[in-house]
Amino acid sequence: MKHVSFPGRLVMLGCGSIGQGVLPLILRHIGMPKDRITVVTADARGRDVAAEYGVRFIEEPATRDNLRDLLVPLLDRDDFLLNLSVDVSSVALIELCQEIGALYLDTCIEPWPGGYTDPSLTPSQRSNYALRESALAVARKHPNGPTAVLTHGANPGLVSHLVKEALLDIARDTGLGEAVPADREGWAALAEKAGVKAIHVAERDTQVAQHRPKEVGEFVNTWSIDGFVGEGRQPAELGWGTHEKVIPADGHRHEFGCDAAIYLLRPGAGTRVRSWTPLEGPMHAFLVTHNESISIADYFTAKGEDGSVRYRPTVHYAYHPCDDAVLSVHELAGKNWQMQSRQRLMMDEITSGLDELGVLLMGHAKGAYWYGSRLSIEQARELVPHNNATSLQVTAAVLAGLVWAMENPRAGILEADQIDHARCMEIMRPYLGEVVGVYSDWTPLQDRNFPFPEELDESDPWQFSNVRVV
Amino acid sequence: MKHVSFPGRLVMLGCGSIGQGVLPLILRHIGMPKDRITVVTADARGRDVAAEYGVRFIEEPATRDNLRDLLVPLLDRDDFLLNLSVDVSSVALIELCQEIGALYLDTCIEPWPGGYTDPSLTPSQRSNYALRESALAVARKHPNGPTAVLTHGANPGLVSHLVKEALLDIARDTGLGEAVPADREGWAALAEKAGVKAIHVAERDTQVAQHRPKEVGEFVNTWSIDGFVGEGRQPAELGWGTHEKVIPADGHRHEFGCDAAIYLLRPGAGTRVRSWTPLEGPMHAFLVTHNESISIADYFTAKGEDGSVRYRPTVHYAYHPCDDAVLSVHELAGKNWQMQSRQRLMMDEITSGLDELGVLLMGHAKGAYWYGSRLSIEQARELVPHNNATSLQVTAAVLAGLVWAMENPRAGILEADQIDHARCMEIMRPYLGEVVGVYSDWTPLQDRNFPFPEELDESDPWQFSNVRVV
Ligand SMILES: NC(=O)c1ccc[n+]([C@@H]2O[C@H](COP(=O)([O-])OP(=O)(O)OC[C@H]3O[C@@H](n4cnc5c(N)ncnc54)[C@H](O)[C@@H]3O)[C@@H](O)[C@H]2O)c1
Ligand SMILES: NC(=O)c1ccc[n+]([C@@H]2O[C@H](COP(=O)([O-])OP(=O)(O)OC[C@H]3O[C@@H](n4cnc5c(N)ncnc54)[C@H](O)[C@@H]3O)[C@@H](O)[C@H]2O)c1
Repeated sequence: MKHVSFPGRLVMLGCGSIGQGVLPLILRHIGMPKDRITVVTADARGRDVAAEYGVRFIEEPATRDNLRDLLVPLLDRDDFLLNLSVDVSSVALIELCQEIGALYLDTCIEPWPGGYTDPSLTPSQRSNYALRESALAVARKHPNGPTAVLTHGANPGLVSHLVKEALLDIARDTGLGEAVPADREGWAALAEKAGVKAIHVAERDTQVAQHRPKEVGEFVNTWSIDGFVGEGRQPAELGWGTHEKVIPADGHRHEFGCDAAIYLLRPGAGTRVRSWTPLEGPMHAFLVTHNESISIADYFTAKGEDGSVRYRPTVHYAYHPCDDAVLSVHELAGKNWQMQSRQRLMMDEITSGLDELGVLLMGHAKGAYWYGSRLSIEQARELVPHNNATSLQVTAAVLAGLVWAMENPRAGILEADQIDHARCMEIMRPYLGEVVGVYSDWTPLQDRNFPFPEELDESDPWQFSNVRVV
Repeated sequence: MKHVSFPGRLVMLGCGSIGQGVLPLILRHIGMPKDRITVVTADARGRDVAAEYGVRFIEEPATRDNLRDLLVPLLDRDDFLLNLSVDVSSVALIELCQEIGALYLDTCIEPWPGGYTDPSLTPSQRSNYALRESALAVARKHPNGPTAVLTHGANPGLVSHLVKEALLDIARDTGLGEAVPADREGWAALAEKAGVKAIHVAERDTQVAQHRPKEVGEFVNTWSIDGFVGEGRQPAELGWGTHEKVIPADGHRHEFGCDAAIYLLRPGAGTRVRSWTPLEGPMHAFLVTHNESISIADYFTAKGEDGSVRYRPTVHYAYHPCDDAVLSVHELAGKNWQMQSRQRLMMDEITSGLDELGVLLMGHAKGAYWYGSRLSIEQARELVPHNNATSLQVTAAVLAGLVWAMENPRAGILEADQIDHARCMEIMRPYLGEVVGVYSDWTPLQDRNFPFPEELDESDPWQFSNVRVV
């Protein structure tokens, strides 16, 4: 079924796990001839898949220097730049699109290479907070420009829509009614009224390759290894809620921008938090920085009449990657974050497992509510070729963002939180496996003080100090 | 080749991975008829192996209540109790043996069940320090009693002998001569003269079962899972060196006993340290409490004329278990240290890997020196049936301890540090694979301050504060 027909050309930058996985979805659901699609990427990965779908494939890395020469010939007004690369500045691409009048979508705000660890930048400048602020600054310059959808993958992306659906469920189940808020203020007011204190993007990936365990010196993951290691070495970042009593000793506010988030002076992949998913139960997960931690906290901020912040939830990622990636992170940390020499993005060798990806809303009248997608490798393979469970949650969201942008081509530069969650969910839902909501009485205080006494804030389970693993 | 002939009976308590692995070694190297050997154990594990070797097998768990009734009929003066069980009090067994006049050996000072997590005990009372002090108190009561060798497995056990051999290498290579110290004072003086500040028992186990990855909800290891989880939930403990400037914020001294060690108020399996082995290179490892951390620090303590402590090295375990065990610990911690419902001790399914187990002596004129055993699964299988690489390093040491005790039957109650390292090494060496010594310029400051600035003591790399992962 075609959701939309698109008369322009589409350039896809990058053709890794996400690029390859989204091609069949684009051709299935967007009415456009395949000879209007061009892949531009840095290496041969995906050449076979592009050939399979009859799509042009240009192997030439985008750089600061060649960006215009490479892309201007391929993009006109009302064409589309779909950015699924790593190591290419999203802000540079967005500015180019605004200038040309082309539409744009990405799944992550990337800096130029080295930006995540550049020692000449302060940790604050290396944060997703700073990357987001730089994109928002461009957005303010082009209020009614061609649509650019920022960070619309699974997370960031899908999860912003899941938060809204979860919040509507909680409102309904706690007697707050069924009205759907009409704007940002309405959503923030509803979250405040429901008493949501903390939101985790709580993910447990159990995909495993039965006959191919991680080797010593190998980084293994179910999606971009460059992407994961890049963000894992950024400072841990979290939207900082108004219920929090003390900022952590290693926590810092940024001295600019929206102030919705803080960062910890340590790599996210070295920072563990307690979280919970329905199938895994309690778990330790990594507080890896993500754009949604900041955008959701910012979006759900309620302000008083004087403009001061009255309510904001704490928001962060709690990522339990697949077991081989947990081991890969352990090894990487042991080498002081110097990347392993070999990398393997698991795809065809996966034999079982699922990606349980959702949002965990906590502190309301019913305790904790997890709402999200359970997608198994078998389901993913049956639904769309060239995907695993992790990539399909992303590529479905990319598809939804593409469709929405094509349907709304002059909406300016927007984050997932600002676009129609119902329309996006409608497009994504067939690809998310089981979408479930589960209430739980789990709190980060459960089973604590064992085997030794711990410093806990028993008066409020949802303090970040209780969530963090030290 | 028989090392010794033994006219008495031998009771082996427990028949898990170590018990099963040591049976062929006993029959190969100790001159005694197999019908003089009886296995007493809590479950059917090892029944087949006992049958294979024609050894009597009694399936009855030892308890506080039945201990005498169970063992007194099986043990007379000059018989041998080999304790390879979990959950049976070593001190109770030692006292019984002293009373009967039987010889004794174990590989770990175990408490009665629950002793590691009993909430009615203080963390200090749940420590290996306290267990060791309770065994030393019994030792003082029986100065010339029947020989009881305490904690003589790989570590504790073998590693005490490795420290001495390593120290002799360092002395030779740094111009301190080749004389072998004659007594404890001599060994401590040599370590002090060599300038050894810290000693890690640095182990990296790379054994893997290619076709059987750890499942969700399963604890997998290459040796006793009860044993590892038991010690992993004890407080992290370390011999506390005289060069250390500050005791950690969560560190505590015990208020009794030798005072050679401190404990951290947290489980060892949740406490990471930086360490190094020649094949793995830099790694994060677990600071799991072990008897040798205390006994080696105590043994190598040099005192002034007034009895005050002048020199002591910091000593602790830095354990990187096999990858599936790293994942198992991660999962266990995520469940707040509530044991998984399924356990699997890997043996026949292992397809490759080795156990790199040695001691890392640091701070001397040549920096760091790792000395130890590299034993692969293939070598272990070729050398002795019913072993993997991990168990053979233990069972070879059990054999050496048995032989030494039989050769020295009235030496009283002793730790590995107090018995003849040269004789023990002679017996063990054929079973340790490659025994190698490697100097390294590694320090825990290598590659630090990346990606973010860290609080480091640059003036002395060997401070524990630099070693610990926070
Ligand atoms: N929001 C989400 O849920 C989500 C999920 C997964 C991935 N992502 C992001 O999507 C992006 C792609 O992920 P992936 O798993 O496909 O990554 P991948 O590592 O599999 O592939 C990256 C692709 O980028 C290309 N590339 C690298 N440098 C380039 C350059 N200079 N010019 C052009 N192309 C270049 C590579 O050739 C490769 O095709 C990453 O930024 C990742 O962080 C987001
Ligand atoms: N020093 C070392 O290097 C070293 C290394 C490995 C193991 N160990 C120690 O050796 C011991 C055995 O290790 P393993 O890997 O063989 O353990 P395992 O878990 O494989 O086996 C334990 C055995 O103890 C038996 N047992 C349990 N409760 C008992 C009871 N009440 N009475 C009699 N028997 C009982 C079980 O039936 C089983 O046969 C453990 O204490 C472990 O900590 C020491």
